Amino acid sequence: MESISKPTLILDQEKCQRNIIRMLDKLKAQGIAFRPHFKTHQSGHIGEWFSALGVKKITVSSLSMAHYFSQFGWQDITVAFPLNILELNQIRTLSESLNLGLLVLDPKTVDDLGKNTHHTIALWIKIDVGTHRTGLASQARIDIDHIIERIQHYPHLQFRGFLAHAGHSYTSRSVGEVESIYNESLRILIDLKAAYISNHPGIEISLGDTPGASMVEQLGEVDELRPGNFVFYDLMQEEIGACTLDDIAVVMACPVVAVHPDRHQWIIYGGAVHFSKEFLNVKEGVSCYGRMVDFLKDGWTTKNVVTNPYIASLSQEHGIVQCTEETFGLYQPGDLTFWLPVHSCLTADAMGSYRMKDGRPIEHYRRHIYD
Amino acid sequence: MESISKPTLILDQEKCQRNIIRMLDKLKAQGIAFRPHFKTHQSGHIGEWFSALGVKKITVSSLSMAHYFSQFGWQDITVAFPLNILELNQIRTLSESLNLGLLVLDPKTVDDLGKNTHHTIALWIKIDVGTHRTGLASQARIDIDHIIERIQHYPHLQFRGFLAHAGHSYTSRSVGEVESIYNESLRILIDLKAAYISNHPGIEISLGDTPGASMVEQLGEVDELRPGNFVFYDLMQEEIGACTLDDIAVVMACPVVAVHPDRHQWIIYGGAVHFSKEFLNVKEGVSCYGRMVDFLKDGWTTKNVVTNPYIASLSQEHGIVQCTEETFGLYQPGDLTFWLPVHSCLTADAMGSYRMKDGRPIEHYRRHIYD
Repeated sequence: MESISKPTLILDQEKCQRNIIRMLDKLKAQGIAFRPHFKTHQSGHIGEWFSALGVKKITVSSLSMAHYFSQFGWQDITVAFPLNILELNQIRTLSESLNLGLLVLDPKTVDDLGKNTHHTIALWIKIDVGTHRTGLASQARIDIDHIIERIQHYPHLQFRGFLAHAGHSYTSRSVGEVESIYNESLRILIDLKAAYISNHPGIEISLGDTPGASMVEQLGEVDELRPGNFVFYDLMQEEIGACTLDDIAVVMACPVVAVHPDRHQWIIYGGAVHFSKEFLNVKEGVSCYGRMVDFLKDGWTTKNVVTNPYIASLSQEHGIVQCTEETFGLYQPGDLTFWLPVHSCLTADAMGSYRMKDGRPIEHYRRHIYD
Repeated sequence: MESISKPTLILDQEKCQRNIIRMLDKLKAQGIAFRPHFKTHQSGHIGEWFSALGVKKITVSSLSMAHYFSQFGWQDITVAFPLNILELNQIRTLSESLNLGLLVLDPKTVDDLGKNTHHTIALWIKIDVGTHRTGLASQARIDIDHIIERIQHYPHLQFRGFLAHAGHSYTSRSVGEVESIYNESLRILIDLKAAYISNHPGIEISLGDTPGASMVEQLGEVDELRPGNFVFYDLMQEEIGACTLDDIAVVMACPVVAVHPDRHQWIIYGGAVHFSKEFLNVKEGVSCYGRMVDFLKDGWTTKNVVTNPYIASLSQEHGIVQCTEETFGLYQPGDLTFWLPVHSCLTADAMGSYRMKDGRPIEHYRRHIYD
């Protein structure tokens, strides 16, 4: 840690691999295909920890990210984002070299795709299971039929099944709530599969979200799960109940640069461009952008997290840390402090690089987006 | 625009240069030194538009950014962020090759700096003029005296004066409020200067914030101003009253990827990793993450911004756009849409690259932070 002089995202390989193995074992035991979402870690290096365990299929959130992971040997990639027909060239290139899965929501886009590509592409119909971000309503059978009809018009397009993301589980704060959202989402997909499988043998249903995959014991008749955040977890997942504080596999190291005894605050070098602006409401009118852990020789401990200082606000490069009278004296300007992030996906993306606890750098997609 | 297939930040050079010239002329007419903050554009390329107009001194928010701009020939750089003593090596290197200004808030850091450097470094004492982010209270004369005494102990350290950022102007929504914050902030610095100048001839006072520099007509007895955001402006500045919608020099181009007629929403490819999570509260319980402009052949028009759709929420790569019944039909999946950002500094940082309206790429610091 002595070499760290500015905001640095530190990865605990052991915790991360423990998270991966736990999820993999759970899904394997229930006969569910595991297609982890790599948008959280966005790392070819971390991807190799999955492939070493036998994982062969992944999810990403953009075609550019699919291209990045294809360079690390991944051959079966679903882009869990509505098909962006403006990236037809990228789609064409990727479909030539790997098993590409895309999401469709309207017949015209299917036609544009079918007419302009020649290699096999798997198409999932995106279903809205209650999140109301995107997807077709499961009742919209005329629209669904129309999309399938257009898919079947092109021999190289394959109707793969129904895919959903139960993102509304993020507002849950108990196992009961998460279970009820998961079960309702799954029921919607199961009903759709039942309605279409006789005419379309082999179709599958795919569901994804870390709270559901982490908290629901019996995952039911789902063919494939696509959780992503579980690889690191974060304070938001801990708040939902999807992990413990000790499961969180990344912390941000930030130098203290000023202290304000009158209001028991520190200023750290670590702002919105490092953490992202994601926050939790810890109580009425109080926002939290990160919580402090205590760093030990070989890692960090979360045992004082509840009484430790927290990040109360962020501007571009500054973090304002709220302490109490008791904790204010813990650190001085020139000291390094360590913070659990609220949303590890966005923090990892903002940072664009990791270091292991021993200082070794870890690859991240972000540094390649300017190529 | 035909070549744009994914989220792209587009820069209107004419608007940007008009913003620069307006600020430069205003400060020149009032005999105030202009030290623009380059943390907004973070671009060596855009920096050249300033140097072409005779600007010689700049502000940045980190030592790494100072290093970046030194490579473009900038020789007089203030890092407007509390001195991070952990970056002593970087400070040493930079102070060897350019006129480096740093901010100090405590005597121990001054000692650590003085003992470990040998080249001239200008030190500003950071004053809190009411923002309560960081800085010493102007009444803390014993602390201020102590810091100055330590600075004077080291012949290569130069006490440069008092520096403040009136960031609380961002909560203002009228010229009157901004003026009152500006004048009060300036009065605090003028009083300090008056108290110290006889013993420290040549000290100056430096103030910075875009609302104050843009909205206050008579800028008074300030030696130096350091606005940054004015180079692009954004929806937040427009809300404050610091600019018009037509002054905003950047827009995000985002493909529409799905439409939801039942709730008059579009999904665009453009999320938190592109815009940042900064938002405005447009009314009780309604957040806005961006507003749509209409793109013309040679630029964009803001004339329909008020009635146009707006971005109602952002996840990692998705933007949810709220339309009305009237505007819902404007665009379809596969169309490009164009969005004024809420906070251009964070959007530019998240994107890490620009394109001119004619497609030419513009350099951004972000792509070098992994070197």
